[in-house]
Amino acid sequence: MRKNWFFIALTGAFVLSGAAHYMRWGAILEFAFSSVAILFVAGFLGKATESVAHYAGQRLGGFLNATFGNAAELIIAIFLVKEGLFDMVKASLTGAIIGNLLLVLGLSILLGGLKYKEQHYNIHLAGYNATLMMLAVIGLFVPAIFVKVENFSFEQDRLLSLTVAGILIIAYILWLIFSMITHKDTLAESEATSAGHGEQPAWSKKTSILFLVLATVMVALVSEWLVGTLETFTTRFGLSELFVGAFVIAIVGNAAEHSAAVMLAMKNKIGAAVEIAIGSSLQIALFVAPVLVFVSMLFGNTMDIVFTTIELAAIGVSVFIATSISRDGRTNWYEGALLLMVYIILGFAFYLV
Amino acid sequence: MRKNWFFIALTGAFVLSGAAHYMRWGAILEFAFSSVAILFVAGFLGKATESVAHYAGQRLGGFLNATFGNAAELIIAIFLVKEGLFDMVKASLTGAIIGNLLLVLGLSILLGGLKYKEQHYNIHLAGYNATLMMLAVIGLFVPAIFVKVENFSFEQDRLLSLTVAGILIIAYILWLIFSMITHKDTLAESEATSAGHGEQPAWSKKTSILFLVLATVMVALVSEWLVGTLETFTTRFGLSELFVGAFVIAIVGNAAEHSAAVMLAMKNKIGAAVEIAIGSSLQIALFVAPVLVFVSMLFGNTMDIVFTTIELAAIGVSVFIATSISRDGRTNWYEGALLLMVYIILGFAFYLV
Amino acid sequence: MRKNWFFIALTGAFVLSGAAHYMRWGAILEFAFSSVAILFVAGFLGKATESVAHYAGQRLGGFLNATFGNAAELIIAIFLVKEGLFDMVKASLTGAIIGNLLLVLGLSILLGGLKYKEQHYNIHLAGYNATLMMLAVIGLFVPAIFVKVENFSFEQDRLLSLTVAGILIIAYILWLIFSMITHKDTLAESEATSAGHGEQPAWSKKTSILFLVLATVMVALVSEWLVGTLETFTTRFGLSELFVGAFVIAIVGNAAEHSAAVMLAMKNKIGAAVEIAIGSSLQIALFVAPVLVFVSMLFGNTMDIVFTTIELAAIGVSVFIATSISRDGRTNWYEGALLLMVYIILGFAFYLV
Repeated sequence: MRKNWFFIALTGAFVLSGAAHYMRWGAILEFAFSSVAILFVAGFLGKATESVAHYAGQRLGGFLNATFGNAAELIIAIFLVKEGLFDMVKASLTGAIIGNLLLVLGLSILLGGLKYKEQHYNIHLAGYNATLMMLAVIGLFVPAIFVKVENFSFEQDRLLSLTVAGILIIAYILWLIFSMITHKDTLAESEATSAGHGEQPAWSKKTSILFLVLATVMVALVSEWLVGTLETFTTRFGLSELFVGAFVIAIVGNAAEHSAAVMLAMKNKIGAAVEIAIGSSLQIALFVAPVLVFVSMLFGNTMDIVFTTIELAAIGVSVFIATSISRDGRTNWYEGALLLMVYIILGFAFYLV
Repeated sequence: MRKNWFFIALTGAFVLSGAAHYMRWGAILEFAFSSVAILFVAGFLGKATESVAHYAGQRLGGFLNATFGNAAELIIAIFLVKEGLFDMVKASLTGAIIGNLLLVLGLSILLGGLKYKEQHYNIHLAGYNATLMMLAVIGLFVPAIFVKVENFSFEQDRLLSLTVAGILIIAYILWLIFSMITHKDTLAESEATSAGHGEQPAWSKKTSILFLVLATVMVALVSEWLVGTLETFTTRFGLSELFVGAFVIAIVGNAAEHSAAVMLAMKNKIGAAVEIAIGSSLQIALFVAPVLVFVSMLFGNTMDIVFTTIELAAIGVSVFIATSISRDGRTNWYEGALLLMVYIILGFAFYLV
Repeated sequence: MRKNWFFIALTGAFVLSGAAHYMRWGAILEFAFSSVAILFVAGFLGKATESVAHYAGQRLGGFLNATFGNAAELIIAIFLVKEGLFDMVKASLTGAIIGNLLLVLGLSILLGGLKYKEQHYNIHLAGYNATLMMLAVIGLFVPAIFVKVENFSFEQDRLLSLTVAGILIIAYILWLIFSMITHKDTLAESEATSAGHGEQPAWSKKTSILFLVLATVMVALVSEWLVGTLETFTTRFGLSELFVGAFVIAIVGNAAEHSAAVMLAMKNKIGAAVEIAIGSSLQIALFVAPVLVFVSMLFGNTMDIVFTTIELAAIGVSVFIATSISRDGRTNWYEGALLLMVYIILGFAFYLV
């Protein structure tokens, strides 16, 4: 019965959002409808992903969550790269990384922590996540420092960016080999304990996969409609492109991870929630960002991988606080609150720029 | 018998110091007498606090130590804020943070470590302390980076400072709720083992509290007299205000934590000593500093929370080495020596400015 | 039989290299022969050191490895200091630190990890190593920040450099007292388990020591011949002095640690391999670098201890990733691959300067 109401609301919001877009009802109405629609389609994607994840096992499930959660960001970013809006791309990548590490992780840990006094997850995975995040930070800091301090030429800048992008992609592929093939068991060993209640998913395996595909398409469409309204929205409310890229787009684009991770945390599957949040920001830093460098090369206008000082500061700060909190494999409500407070500080600072 | 001699010396030094101040015996004599007096009144405060802490339990005792140890800093800082001497305020806050993390913690660990080969304390508490210190560093770094890199206006600077100050105070209050209410038992679980010998305090509960109040008043008075001599002292010995604020005031103002923490470390209660040193610097960064921003607003001249590059470098360096050392919940003499050596490096660098 | 072939190749390469040097066969031939020779003499040094280390115990053995591995760097650096080539000295010290932390450690962990799924070592030692590396970073960052931000004069710069150098040497001596005398057993406790197969060394104790001395002399000679060809080599291939100092000299100078550490890792003695790599970079940062400041004072032209921004960034990045990986006392192939990828990123960035 609850399922039926959900599907009616989902379909209604989606149809209204599409109508507002194609029939040109105006940016404000379109923004309002697509904002509501994104919550439902993201919720749908979350449920479908969770269901598929159940059949695929917890870790692959977390990976699936991260992959499908980042589909929206990737589509938006490729569109922006094509338009040559490199600053907006980097702002939205920055926003996606800090949004996952602070907002998604923070909210999951806080809400999970209000329900369960202490939640536990695989401490080895936490260690690897910390090291990988450090690699991502290094990969983004080194080009910035060398380009700024040594006054690199356009050519040096692009050579370094392509090399770093290539190495980050290799690191990401090796990580998949490591975590899914050679050391699969090490990383999985203690997850079984956090998998918990083992409740049955609502749909069959086939239906789950079908719904996952359907939900992905819907998220992508609604995301695009929403993004199309952002420019009008930005100028009307006097917001900077940096703030919109780093916070509005990132929050909208991460809604799927958001709801999926929070739902998992509240079912005491904090391991999977952490995997979604940190795995997603790792995927953006080590895979989406470098892939966009090569994509831009195909469009004939190579984007460098040099972020601004405040973007790097925001990423660095987020990585340090998130790894400090996640390193011990235990979470509680206060750690979630801390992450959210850092997110608010950064959000307000970007808003003032 | 020893107690009697102590009270005679305490009273003598206090009376001489007061006489030198009110009868204007000259800055040098006043400086000399109040320097001696501060040692005795701080020692008295240490004993009284330890005694009250015995009745209150170890963790609340550590918190009491930190609170009463920071009374002097807060009084001095409010006076400086009232005079609009914002640079001096920030220098003294910087000095109090690094003084607690390097000098007080270093001396406690070194002297405790010379007596006991290895000392242990609650590893969970160490993890939380590390994360909280990181929040404090983030709270101080973000405004500085944004204000400097993005050339914030006066108004943007104050808006960001007030927001960050508000969030830091909320973080501090939530921490008290977390550590004293919702997760009191988690943090307390292994402290019982380090509480050790359980010796009886010298005074009754009532006398202890009375002495605590008396000692606090005496510390505040003598601190004020001492600070009053610092300007003459500074110019006569050719020291910079930065050095005096960050090292002379901070060492004098921290004498209470100093003696209390070292005494506890030498009784093998390293957990309480760490709690005093780290708890005190946390309280300054997350509570005293942001409160002063609001206090300055009441005086009609809002102070920002933007520290200088070398102050932030000093705080960052101290937090990183202190958390690296304290993260494993074990201490030895060498770790104490390391902290002191970093303190000497920073002290000499500030002296040269 | 294999031993005999090794000695024939060793002698042949050494004699050819010496002949090319003294008979002036030209820089390219001399470079080629001495490059081959350095591999054999470094291998010889590695075998001799390992053999002596067997008789001396694993930890002292690791220390011996580090000491004899750094003999080449020290000789080269003193020669460069004498010539007043301070930038080249700092570049080669930077290169030695990051070469040990990324290349030597990375290759050891990668190759050891391809043979053994997971390797373990003393977690306490890892913690101390991390803290000491942090001290080294602080010792190098503080002078740089103060000198640059506060525009220190020549005299202030030298006073601060000498003070920091003195404190780093004291920290190093206290570390030796701590690790070899007062807390020897704490650090050694779990190394016995990683010492492994306990195979017999090929030579007697006396022969081992004789060979160690002989190999040291040969390494020093060949290193010198090789370095003599570097200037011609640099200009002919259009490389910057920074790149040659930080990568070519460092790789050549670290060949001994390199082969010794990799050999140990492949025998599952990862604890000794980590000790060589991290111990060696610690020795360079805490001992070789500060000693060179005092040596330069004896030559009448005091070198400061202020490194450039990109050198400090490279050292900082290496220390953070290496300590993040080594903190848990466990290694696998992926962690080695990560270190090597960071080395490649830094190497390419320095190459482009």
